[in-house]
Amino acid sequence: MSVPVLILVTRPVVGEPAGSSGSPGRPSESTDARPAPFVQADPTLPHLSVLDLGVTRGDGEFETVMVSQGAAPAIDAHLDRFAASARLLDLPEPDRAVWRAAFDAAVAAHPPVELLAVKLVLTRGIEGKDTPTGWIVAQPGRDFSRERVEGVRVVTLDRGYRHDVATTSPWLLQGAKTLSYAVNTAAIREAKRRGADDVIFTSSDGFVLEAPTASVLLREGDRFVTPSAELGILPGTTQRRAFALLEELGYETGAKRLRSSELGRADALWLVSSIRRAVPVVELDGVAKCVDRELTARLNEYLGEH
Amino acid sequence: MSVPVLILVTRPVVGEPAGSSGSPGRPSESTDARPAPFVQADPTLPHLSVLDLGVTRGDGEFETVMVSQGAAPAIDAHLDRFAASARLLDLPEPDRAVWRAAFDAAVAAHPPVELLAVKLVLTRGIEGKDTPTGWIVAQPGRDFSRERVEGVRVVTLDRGYRHDVATTSPWLLQGAKTLSYAVNTAAIREAKRRGADDVIFTSSDGFVLEAPTASVLLREGDRFVTPSAELGILPGTTQRRAFALLEELGYETGAKRLRSSELGRADALWLVSSIRRAVPVVELDGVAKCVDRELTARLNEYLGEH
Repeated sequence: MSVPVLILVTRPVVGEPAGSSGSPGRPSESTDARPAPFVQADPTLPHLSVLDLGVTRGDGEFETVMVSQGAAPAIDAHLDRFAASARLLDLPEPDRAVWRAAFDAAVAAHPPVELLAVKLVLTRGIEGKDTPTGWIVAQPGRDFSRERVEGVRVVTLDRGYRHDVATTSPWLLQGAKTLSYAVNTAAIREAKRRGADDVIFTSSDGFVLEAPTASVLLREGDRFVTPSAELGILPGTTQRRAFALLEELGYETGAKRLRSSELGRADALWLVSSIRRAVPVVELDGVAKCVDRELTARLNEYLGEH
Repeated sequence: MSVPVLILVTRPVVGEPAGSSGSPGRPSESTDARPAPFVQADPTLPHLSVLDLGVTRGDGEFETVMVSQGAAPAIDAHLDRFAASARLLDLPEPDRAVWRAAFDAAVAAHPPVELLAVKLVLTRGIEGKDTPTGWIVAQPGRDFSRERVEGVRVVTLDRGYRHDVATTSPWLLQGAKTLSYAVNTAAIREAKRRGADDVIFTSSDGFVLEAPTASVLLREGDRFVTPSAELGILPGTTQRRAFALLEELGYETGAKRLRSSELGRADALWLVSSIRRAVPVVELDGVAKCVDRELTARLNEYLGEH
């Protein structure tokens, strides 16, 4: 296994940490005397305190960005969502210029590979210190070419929340990409127990939401749809790029509320995410689904480049 | 601030880690050639990998144990719950003897203080390595004597889940004390925005659950009740000790399903947890609650000793 590149983001947020002696405001001068906003570090060494709220409370956020042959077509969308998750979590604003530069540094420091998965993480930091912790890990993306052709078997599982909790109960953090992902990984374990590979979450009142680590895409005739982001799900950066291709190809696209029953009736179904790209669903709750192999291949080719 | 004591639990679970060369089975001999099952470490240094699933997915569990003047009356109940959370999370079984010995070592290594808060953490470990990470941090417990007398203002907030999800949807991990606590901390921030100090969560169908870091105790005449654990809440180790005293005093105690409306009608209300002990609720959703100061003082005295 190759060694990941690790960048510690030492000035991850806009403004000074509490108790800092410097003047407040956005650090924008590269000529000042302060330490660099990020440094490369040895990924085989430990860098996190056991007192970091990122681990003691899952209190932080992340993004996983695909870099394909050196290009990161969705980096801006990921940085937008990174900022949005911080707002939902009441974290200080990530310093976009710093994260962008640190991201570029991580990519540049990694030996060239076809597919790089770059993870950005921001936590609330060590309890009581008011200084967020930030880092970036770049490592070769797992090869999902088999899954892109052979597809995945999916079960629907109740996410437990009503479709409207993001509006009624923002403290449930639906729509934020937080480090509190234990339920997402537990749901995938449950899928495996049921002989499947992955999950599509539904709301307690029967609407289609998202997969634990992907967005859901449906084909209904010549129209492609995804569940609306107002349902407290993540706005999919890959889903957006997939729609761009589908629109180029002349298809209609749109986001709407989808009843779980519509999943069964869909002409085709995909899970789409940064590293896996578009994976066709070949079985839904034990029932075979049709797969459009040609369109799937075209989607995956496009998502690797755009 | 004093320096916490940190113990790294190097053999946290029963059985050998995957790929280990030793013979399988429970490590029970202290005379074998393997490294010690735990070691003391410098808490001011980083000890966690940024690739640990404890931080990247909030995938792990914890317990916070009170040690009052050297005694840990609830340690067995905490170790029971630690094992139960591991089962709910499909983590390997924590090696109880190792954790107990490591806990004792943490307490012994800390300078004597009136109140020590000892946190036990077990994560799924570094992604792809199949070796859980474990550690214990012992540090002086925050002084909550003011809150025990003056009480806390509480708001009820929807936990988003129906009362029965622990049964219908075990992948939601309700009833496990996981590291994915971002919602719990977000709820407390929401309470502060509303001018309160803490939260009592209710189910989406109107049942009383628990506080983000405490159990709920109600007085109804000469009867004391707490919401049943079948509602997907943590079985409270402190609540159990509180009931022991109340029974000694001749009161009736019990667990049942409580409608949120019953909170308002209760004669008195407490949040009970290891370090804070019994904190009276002086205001519920903006309405003042009666406080039985004498009984509260007696509860807190007892909880500090038993």
